[in-house]
Amino acid sequence: MKLREIAERLHCHLDGSGDVEIHRVAGIEQAQPGDLTFIANPKYQSQLSTTKASAVIVASSLDVTPSTLPLLRTDQPYLVFAQAVGLFAHAELPAPGIHPSSVVAADARLGADVSIGPLAVIGAGATIGARTIVFPQAVIGPGATIGDDCVLHARVSIRERVRIGHRVVIQDGAVIGSDGFGFVRQSDGSHMKIPQHADVVVEDDVEIGANTTIDRPAVGETRIGRGSKIDNLVQIAHGVRVGERVLFAAQVGVAGSTVVEDEVTLAGQVGVAGHLRLGKGVIATAQTGIPNSVDAGQLISGYPAIPNREWLKSSAVFRNLPALKKQVAELDRRIAALQEMLEPCVKSSDE
Amino acid sequence: MKLREIAERLHCHLDGSGDVEIHRVAGIEQAQPGDLTFIANPKYQSQLSTTKASAVIVASSLDVTPSTLPLLRTDQPYLVFAQAVGLFAHAELPAPGIHPSSVVAADARLGADVSIGPLAVIGAGATIGARTIVFPQAVIGPGATIGDDCVLHARVSIRERVRIGHRVVIQDGAVIGSDGFGFVRQSDGSHMKIPQHADVVVEDDVEIGANTTIDRPAVGETRIGRGSKIDNLVQIAHGVRVGERVLFAAQVGVAGSTVVEDEVTLAGQVGVAGHLRLGKGVIATAQTGIPNSVDAGQLISGYPAIPNREWLKSSAVFRNLPALKKQVAELDRRIAALQEMLEPCVKSSDE
Amino acid sequence: MKLREIAERLHCHLDGSGDVEIHRVAGIEQAQPGDLTFIANPKYQSQLSTTKASAVIVASSLDVTPSTLPLLRTDQPYLVFAQAVGLFAHAELPAPGIHPSSVVAADARLGADVSIGPLAVIGAGATIGARTIVFPQAVIGPGATIGDDCVLHARVSIRERVRIGHRVVIQDGAVIGSDGFGFVRQSDGSHMKIPQHADVVVEDDVEIGANTTIDRPAVGETRIGRGSKIDNLVQIAHGVRVGERVLFAAQVGVAGSTVVEDEVTLAGQVGVAGHLRLGKGVIATAQTGIPNSVDAGQLISGYPAIPNREWLKSSAVFRNLPALKKQVAELDRRIAALQEMLEPCVKSSDE
Repeated sequence: MKLREIAERLHCHLDGSGDVEIHRVAGIEQAQPGDLTFIANPKYQSQLSTTKASAVIVASSLDVTPSTLPLLRTDQPYLVFAQAVGLFAHAELPAPGIHPSSVVAADARLGADVSIGPLAVIGAGATIGARTIVFPQAVIGPGATIGDDCVLHARVSIRERVRIGHRVVIQDGAVIGSDGFGFVRQSDGSHMKIPQHADVVVEDDVEIGANTTIDRPAVGETRIGRGSKIDNLVQIAHGVRVGERVLFAAQVGVAGSTVVEDEVTLAGQVGVAGHLRLGKGVIATAQTGIPNSVDAGQLISGYPAIPNREWLKSSAVFRNLPALKKQVAELDRRIAALQEMLEPCVKSSDE
Repeated sequence: MKLREIAERLHCHLDGSGDVEIHRVAGIEQAQPGDLTFIANPKYQSQLSTTKASAVIVASSLDVTPSTLPLLRTDQPYLVFAQAVGLFAHAELPAPGIHPSSVVAADARLGADVSIGPLAVIGAGATIGARTIVFPQAVIGPGATIGDDCVLHARVSIRERVRIGHRVVIQDGAVIGSDGFGFVRQSDGSHMKIPQHADVVVEDDVEIGANTTIDRPAVGETRIGRGSKIDNLVQIAHGVRVGERVLFAAQVGVAGSTVVEDEVTLAGQVGVAGHLRLGKGVIATAQTGIPNSVDAGQLISGYPAIPNREWLKSSAVFRNLPALKKQVAELDRRIAALQEMLEPCVKSSDE
Repeated sequence: MKLREIAERLHCHLDGSGDVEIHRVAGIEQAQPGDLTFIANPKYQSQLSTTKASAVIVASSLDVTPSTLPLLRTDQPYLVFAQAVGLFAHAELPAPGIHPSSVVAADARLGADVSIGPLAVIGAGATIGARTIVFPQAVIGPGATIGDDCVLHARVSIRERVRIGHRVVIQDGAVIGSDGFGFVRQSDGSHMKIPQHADVVVEDDVEIGANTTIDRPAVGETRIGRGSKIDNLVQIAHGVRVGERVLFAAQVGVAGSTVVEDEVTLAGQVGVAGHLRLGKGVIATAQTGIPNSVDAGQLISGYPAIPNREWLKSSAVFRNLPALKKQVAELDRRIAALQEMLEPCVKSSDE
């Protein structure tokens, strides 16, 4: 594709020749001739002079001394990069149709142009929306409902009666609707299982990562709000309610019945205890352990979680704790010495 | 179901009218007319006056001023709640029979009334006990033994020769008997695999969560004791021996050859190093990192783990470390000032 | 097998009778008559007098007072133990052939003596190397390439166009090539997906654990270097480049675009932020949280990560922080007392 055509399609200002042929989008260090690359962060600007790319997406405001490289200028270089990737990405989506090796219940309802891959299982009374793609060996349980334009990758488990909205993407091996971890300790020390048969709802435009698990509760529901994105190997326990436009990075765990409000971001390996409320827009940095509810808008870190600025300062002192301890011991000695010196002084002043 | 009938079935004292028709069990905040709810923790008692539920399970001892709501009184309200959930839960278990799309080895032994779902694989010489349910796409390896009344959810992997007891429940995608992570570093820096072909035993009444992994060792065995319950995305390494009635919450990891004695509880994301012993009844709070063996009955927290009470106190000080550091610097200044003042004093006392 | 034959096969010096018949390799505590066991760590030497094993692998240099137990002496007892396990391990690998229930694309290329298990799916244009074993229900995506002598256990997902080298072992449920977690926040607060269609390369002799996930990036590649070993439930994000002979223990997470150089070792539950570089030979102990790049050869611990020795010392002080705080308060009181005492003293010296 000519750079000129890319500029038009992505609504960028073309700064230089539009004749160059672009074959791929690439990172600025890996880019080769024929590649389009990008600078979203000005600190990488110095790489403009060394990249082998044939063209670069940059911010409109970036002050570039005249270079031989043609530029695509935009107010949102990272967004345009994402769109450029889309121009060159191979969709490779399977064609509509039902593979004869799949096992589809007689009373399942399949929307128009659905694609059901090899060896998938669609349970009794399940509903699959129009144009939804079910990859090989996905298992859709009895009574589950999947909306339109979803992509269920290979080997997902959508358990019985789970309800999934439109345009939801679920990566390989994810499990939605497994039994919550709910037991009652009995007088003999054994644990009686509380039946976990209530609802799981995944709203529109959610993405769920590979091998992530989302449990169903005994009563009430587990819910993932519209537009939320969940990475790989995340655990969402029974009865958790996740708001809209929430981001959970990989290996996050949220314990039972916790409410996560809109636009919360949890970085990798964050853990959240049960029965809490994380207010709107809370951000927790990686590995934070959250034992208590958090007010809206807080940036938190640490184990247990405290405000990020406090944690950074305390962590800096932590690193020097042995020196601090030594200093305290030294002060102790100096005071003792003063006290000893002072004894005769006191006497002398008494005299 | 009439409340009166529920009271009888669950052996509760009915306090109020038994005529109300109950359709569902629900949490006290979500409950609607027709719902039965519960108060297991007295601190939620105030919600009795606001709930829309039609009846409430409460402790026998709960002092409730006469209310319009009928009550089911019991000494164990949480246990009775769990039983009530069971009264209304839809079992939805598949009927006995072998789905024709499954691949069952000719010499596999299947007990009475077994249910084998679509596209499941039962390996050569495997044994499935009576009334056990194998959901779609579960893979039972050659020579594996599954007891009676088990439920293996979709897409579990039970590897070759794994032995599973009676009434074991395994959620979707769990892997039992994968190769332990055992390598020997060779003189050229490469790692030689130690073959991992020894045994995995899962005793009766165990529950294993979705996408959890339990490895087999090179020698000896990996064992999960009777009645233990393991949540989602848990890692149990080769040669770990887990006792009875143990609880592992989600994303716990236990490294190789560690012994976990009876009634240990590990909260979410706890990590345990290898070759340790956790004594009976040890409890570790969420995200605890355990580098050493722990005596029976300890409640531990922190990274590295220390007694919970110490950790709580130290964490409180941690948060104020910058202030402590400042205070020490201030003391330093004051002592220096004293020393300076004291110099003439010393002289004066010497005179 | 006679002990004499084992000694010959493993190139050990036989110290004692070679006539004893060995049936199994076992740990020294579990060993029974007929078992061969080993002592790799001299601190377990005392168990030589109590083990029920029939023979023991020990270091050539181990000073054992004459014992009734025959010994196999070697300079590398742990390596020889690993080899001994291999002598007795049952391979149990399926025979070559394509199970009729598998779904193999017409244009897939299968090498000599390939074994494709029941209900596996091989996508269009995929290539499977000679003697590679594909266990039941593995899904190999369109255009994926698998080398020779690989073992893909049950229910792995190898996504489209992923390239896997020779002698790679992948445990059950692992997902290679799922979409990276890449989104652009738009002005309305919603997140636009950046298409993730670029490459994943797994080099020769790599092992990947059960339910581990390795994502593909939008541009560039995700790469696992030759001979690296990755345990269960590990997350490797889009664009991560892992060097050679790297070890990742279970539940490690590495965020996007990070470079992990050769011979790095990350213990269980370690988390690494994105866009970092871990230098050659870095070792991080369990649960370390790594927010910054690390120079080659460092041994690190802590959250955030610091040199292991500092972390051990600081952690020891952390445990005693309440005492330290009390000591500082006490110093404060003593200084105040001194100041008070000093006032008349100062006056007296002024007189």
